[in-house]
Amino acid sequence: MAEETQIRIDERSVGVVETRYFHCDGLLPLESGQTLGPFTLAYEAYGALNDARDNAILLLHALSGDAHAAGYHADDLRKPRPKPGWWDEMVGPGKAFDTARFFVVCANVIGGCMGSTGPSSINPATGQPYATDFPVITIGDMVNAQKLLMDHLAIPRWYAVSGGSMGGMQALRWAVAYPDCVARCIPIATTHRLSAQSIAFDAVGRAAIMSDPNWQNGHYYGTGKIPASGLAVARMVGHITYLSEQSMHEKFGRQLRDADAYTWDFDPEFSVETYLQYQGDSFVKRFDANSYLYITKAMDYFDMGAGYDALAQALEPATARFLVLSFSSDWLFTTAESKDIVRALRWNGVDVSFMELRSSYGHDAFLLEAEEITRLVKGFLS
Amino acid sequence: MAEETQIRIDERSVGVVETRYFHCDGLLPLESGQTLGPFTLAYEAYGALNDARDNAILLLHALSGDAHAAGYHADDLRKPRPKPGWWDEMVGPGKAFDTARFFVVCANVIGGCMGSTGPSSINPATGQPYATDFPVITIGDMVNAQKLLMDHLAIPRWYAVSGGSMGGMQALRWAVAYPDCVARCIPIATTHRLSAQSIAFDAVGRAAIMSDPNWQNGHYYGTGKIPASGLAVARMVGHITYLSEQSMHEKFGRQLRDADAYTWDFDPEFSVETYLQYQGDSFVKRFDANSYLYITKAMDYFDMGAGYDALAQALEPATARFLVLSFSSDWLFTTAESKDIVRALRWNGVDVSFMELRSSYGHDAFLLEAEEITRLVKGFLS
Repeated sequence: MAEETQIRIDERSVGVVETRYFHCDGLLPLESGQTLGPFTLAYEAYGALNDARDNAILLLHALSGDAHAAGYHADDLRKPRPKPGWWDEMVGPGKAFDTARFFVVCANVIGGCMGSTGPSSINPATGQPYATDFPVITIGDMVNAQKLLMDHLAIPRWYAVSGGSMGGMQALRWAVAYPDCVARCIPIATTHRLSAQSIAFDAVGRAAIMSDPNWQNGHYYGTGKIPASGLAVARMVGHITYLSEQSMHEKFGRQLRDADAYTWDFDPEFSVETYLQYQGDSFVKRFDANSYLYITKAMDYFDMGAGYDALAQALEPATARFLVLSFSSDWLFTTAESKDIVRALRWNGVDVSFMELRSSYGHDAFLLEAEEITRLVKGFLS
Repeated sequence: MAEETQIRIDERSVGVVETRYFHCDGLLPLESGQTLGPFTLAYEAYGALNDARDNAILLLHALSGDAHAAGYHADDLRKPRPKPGWWDEMVGPGKAFDTARFFVVCANVIGGCMGSTGPSSINPATGQPYATDFPVITIGDMVNAQKLLMDHLAIPRWYAVSGGSMGGMQALRWAVAYPDCVARCIPIATTHRLSAQSIAFDAVGRAAIMSDPNWQNGHYYGTGKIPASGLAVARMVGHITYLSEQSMHEKFGRQLRDADAYTWDFDPEFSVETYLQYQGDSFVKRFDANSYLYITKAMDYFDMGAGYDALAQALEPATARFLVLSFSSDWLFTTAESKDIVRALRWNGVDVSFMELRSSYGHDAFLLEAEEITRLVKGFLS
């Protein structure tokens, strides 16, 4: 097919990849006091594990991410415009996470809807989807599930763990919960705890989903109705927080979508409106509304310093070398929050490099500023 | 009644006030090319018009405001905790807008739901509520309707016009559309045009309302169902933009509402969540969802510089003296946007004072920092 040959699967791509599944028959104890099990983690791996088994890197995805960090799925190649994994610019031979050198692993979080066990999975106790019977999970629970995958892969220690946004939270948690298993930690565009404002945005998203009559208290699977409107609104409000005011201004300004004159009705007409509506509508096609509830809740609960007098105390177990990156225009997880982490680590005598990257992209910069991130990550990993 | 006697109707209050109604039988030409009429403006007036009729001040309200700027309604006094008008701290004998000296007028905007003609009013052509047959209106249309009220009150020139947020937009529009009628203009916490980010937040609010099945394409009046969930979500997202990250942090932080431990479910549990939910739910009781659509759309359309090469050109007709106020933590309508206005006015040789007030309250500061605003407004008006 003409389209297929146009795809740039060059020497810097990991090429065609497959999602694998790790099935764990045990019961995972959760922070809530409940358990989850048996459960499945969908994951992908690129590059080769060396004989010493010491070249493995774990990538951790954000709210709407998945295990597919790099390369192309064979199915996708048959589509007109196949999209590679979410961090394809960062993962491949010669790239930041150099698959010529490293064995790079990425797993979908529990609670997700991209192959790992989540609210849309079948509850073995009932034979029906869990829906809201799925237990509330935390960032720590996600990491504990990943630790079982690590054991399954017989990897004794990660050369590095890294992720942006919620991926950065997991990276931090890894460094503290399993210090012997983490040699290097690269949290990007993240925070040590959700702020009141971030919780507020998440709360609006959840309110939108849960007030959609099609949500049906979460038990919408198999009813032929999904809370599409609510999830779309949740995604729209989330998306605003991922962009900076400056990037929105540069990208859209007050530009109208299709006309020079106002339409004088309530259909989306400003480019920024139609863009947001597109983002909302397309998200609904690929993401499960209940997973959105569970994962945002896990983030809201994330507070590394909770129960400690100081963040430094909470981070005390961490022995990894750190590279902490933030972006100047990120107003969701700000440079000030990254600096809190850096200050606490330095207080503990940990080896930590920190850089605020200049970017107008806002929070999304962790996905878009691959060139700058690559320069820093390559140096840090070498 | 014990409660009644506890109300502080002291010598600095305008006391018990009544909303009045100006019925206009004519047709108001609208910027859309449509007309509106006959129509009603609900308004209140405090203090006395002097014989020279040159001591009248027009106050202009924000999105969710109304004509009731100061004092108490008699009905409200029978409630356990009566609330005064929305700018009561600013309006009264000896206050910023000194009713011992000025005749202070405030009218509910057209498109609103607080007594002026809006989508919930009866359409004389059908005998049914307008709903979405109500014409889309602009900030300019709101001002043109107020001009007819001014003529009705036989006021030749406002001593000053002033308002915060959308009220500031109307003040700007007054100064440009009717320069001979405006001696002084005090736009507070406002902008000369909605930014892409502000349009985006409005678009999310409208999407929430319009995707609520109870909205019924706007024709929900008399059906026994209102789009309460959608309007509540819209108000929640709006409310986040009215507060600063700092004020949210100081007011709520990560504090839990009722418990020391997480509830492990999706009910609102963080204080900031229950606060937002309360704001959403109580807004639904006092505001009409269609008015929310119309008024946010009017703001989105607001762009003083549209059709001109420069903002200064657009503001050229204005001859009033200006006092422009912004707040340091306002991220909805920022100091930078106020400075755009100030720069354009100065370019035109207009007499303009500008002050950015230090405040942690965010956009809501225009309602909360009465003491600081009073100091500046008093000086400006004397």
